[in-house]
Amino acid sequence: MNGIEGAGASQTALYQEVEACARDVSAAGRKLAALPGEQRSAALNAMADELAAARTEVAAANAADLAEAGSLSPPLRQRLQVDDKVFSYILRRLRAVAQLPDPLGEVIEGTTRPNGLEVRRVRVSLGAIGIIYESRPNVTTDAAAVCVRSGNAVLLRGGSEALRTNLVLAEAMRRGATRCGLPEAAIRILGSADREAVHALLRQDRYLDVLIPRGGRSLVETVSRESRIPVIKHYDGVCHLYLAADAPEATAVALTINSKCQRVEVCNALETLLVDEAAASRLLPALATALAAAGVTLRGCPRTRQIIACETADETDWAAEYLAPMLAVRVVPGIDAAIEHINTCGSGHTDAIVTQNLERSRYFCRLVDSASVLVNASTRLSGGGDYGLGAVLGISTDKLHARGPVGPRELTSYKWIAIGQGHLRE
Amino acid sequence: MNGIEGAGASQTALYQEVEACARDVSAAGRKLAALPGEQRSAALNAMADELAAARTEVAAANAADLAEAGSLSPPLRQRLQVDDKVFSYILRRLRAVAQLPDPLGEVIEGTTRPNGLEVRRVRVSLGAIGIIYESRPNVTTDAAAVCVRSGNAVLLRGGSEALRTNLVLAEAMRRGATRCGLPEAAIRILGSADREAVHALLRQDRYLDVLIPRGGRSLVETVSRESRIPVIKHYDGVCHLYLAADAPEATAVALTINSKCQRVEVCNALETLLVDEAAASRLLPALATALAAAGVTLRGCPRTRQIIACETADETDWAAEYLAPMLAVRVVPGIDAAIEHINTCGSGHTDAIVTQNLERSRYFCRLVDSASVLVNASTRLSGGGDYGLGAVLGISTDKLHARGPVGPRELTSYKWIAIGQGHLRE
Repeated sequence: MNGIEGAGASQTALYQEVEACARDVSAAGRKLAALPGEQRSAALNAMADELAAARTEVAAANAADLAEAGSLSPPLRQRLQVDDKVFSYILRRLRAVAQLPDPLGEVIEGTTRPNGLEVRRVRVSLGAIGIIYESRPNVTTDAAAVCVRSGNAVLLRGGSEALRTNLVLAEAMRRGATRCGLPEAAIRILGSADREAVHALLRQDRYLDVLIPRGGRSLVETVSRESRIPVIKHYDGVCHLYLAADAPEATAVALTINSKCQRVEVCNALETLLVDEAAASRLLPALATALAAAGVTLRGCPRTRQIIACETADETDWAAEYLAPMLAVRVVPGIDAAIEHINTCGSGHTDAIVTQNLERSRYFCRLVDSASVLVNASTRLSGGGDYGLGAVLGISTDKLHARGPVGPRELTSYKWIAIGQGHLRE
Repeated sequence: MNGIEGAGASQTALYQEVEACARDVSAAGRKLAALPGEQRSAALNAMADELAAARTEVAAANAADLAEAGSLSPPLRQRLQVDDKVFSYILRRLRAVAQLPDPLGEVIEGTTRPNGLEVRRVRVSLGAIGIIYESRPNVTTDAAAVCVRSGNAVLLRGGSEALRTNLVLAEAMRRGATRCGLPEAAIRILGSADREAVHALLRQDRYLDVLIPRGGRSLVETVSRESRIPVIKHYDGVCHLYLAADAPEATAVALTINSKCQRVEVCNALETLLVDEAAASRLLPALATALAAAGVTLRGCPRTRQIIACETADETDWAAEYLAPMLAVRVVPGIDAAIEHINTCGSGHTDAIVTQNLERSRYFCRLVDSASVLVNASTRLSGGGDYGLGAVLGISTDKLHARGPVGPRELTSYKWIAIGQGHLRE
């Protein structure tokens, strides 16, 4: 056998392994959906118990992953690390999701038709969900939690650098889940470190109902382009805060600082500040002082640079997701220009306004075409926790199916049920 | 210039034409969504008025299309024909959609968080929708109606054999729509008969938010495979009726005949009859008589053929969408086998049970994984009209976003709006 044939055979074996795994997860999804909500709640608590009992194993696996990850950049190493803080967060989150109401079986709407046919639209699970993600091992537990809550089985493919940690986490969750009668394959890790496994995964449209890539833009783009399975996308957050003509200085400064600085590397952090021309000379000096004190570098438009000293912004800055202590600043002639800038340069993720004027706030909310639009609130509040959804898998920038935070309810579909007594079509 | 360069240049010109068209439609979608619902209702009525006034032009264009369509099969010719009955249906439908409640602006849910942040999820339009369909010109008017109702601009690509008819219909609707202040490009026909135009359309992911292919399986598959735009799919209806052990003979026969024969060529017509073993010898003879009288040919499993005379079914019959006076019949040992057959061989479109037992009906509704599950009602009742949705674009077999009938509400997304008074993330 020559090398090429050998590679072909091993590729086929890998494909078959991935397919078998997806098939098992699909069958598990069907069983899972038929179990009562309280059984899935009990399983979520048992998963937390088993994880707590496996703290030492998790630490050992994580240390082994970290030891081999010497070449990773410090931020990536930090994301990989499951320290006590992350671990207690993981347990808390599972127990919190166990308390969430079960989305399945909700009657979304219902009516009795003039002919007596009773029609209702009832929430059901999607079935089997694939999640492809990078380093952070708590995605493994979060994803399992959200999927079990919503009655979906899940096939997880994390980064190879976190494989040992993920396998130990998944095995502990499996023990907890099966103890409560959940099927073995309700939570499954794709164990192969081979990158080809991802390509095989993208072709399992017969078994997986949706795919969620969590990670950088190139991962999301590759998955979207190659997948035969529908994808829920999480793209960049190029988030804006627009300070209207009447924005009070204290609120403007506090929201700018919180939106930009509370955590710079996340998708709902502020990237471009838009200042109304009528407020620019009043607000920009105080903003510049506060942002400089917070260590933020500014890149301004020509008008901004007439008022405060800062770097020069070019066209690329208006579309930049810095994820860093850097902020683009643009003076706009009015609210329409602000909305136009946001709808043209933004990413439809999260955008906010500071104003005291009711009609201006209504106008902004109506015309800004983004998943989240906030009034007098930090962009950092856009998300599942602050919106009251409990655990979420991320923030979708798609318009189809799920937009904004993706919690258990966003991982459901519905079916139509119609009950008659011999009803015919005339 | 040689031939190849010439082709390249004309392809580029075509691509640019399609792109410009999609861009206009996208911009129109944004404007349309900002108009009040009553203005879109008025436009729908004005569109009906203008169509009524253009009856002669429509007839002439349709006659020209029919004259050139000599090679079409009789059923396809019939679908192409806009006779008085079809025309009055078109007008009725537009006026009915004008009466439907506006889906936009609906507060789907809302809450005030413990910190006082007011959060709500508000229904918004998707933006711009592409529809690729075959012969039937009333799809042109139905699609325009459903899209205007839901605040979406629409780019229509019908079959080239119906192009003259579609252009006249669209031009009349454009007159009505613009008279009421809707943007020019709210309803646009892709005029090129070139098949390459479809491929160009599939690449307009920058401008179109969703694509809906309406037609045969190969059209839907091609569009799904090649599109860069998210697709709402309408696949086959391999619909089942399961006659449970206790099914009364009269209901069983009436529902079988209505589900199969009321109209054989549509997606919610019955294709496979499942008969419980405990009822087979009681029900099959009466069913065979009634179906024979209705001109339906039967293909049965071995057990069926022990009870009644009919053709032999093979494995392909269990997955067949006949769309013809032909019915597959299988005797199953019980309800679990019926559900397993439906979930394995069916297409997740529409499936029904006949039973008088409450728990059996609940069990069937819970475990059959289809867009529509009916109890003691004809499969032909699965659809927007009988469910009370008004006009629909078709019946989705997807689980993501829209499942079952696709009406105005299914062509919407939502945005999150959060209102605070200087709320920060801690």
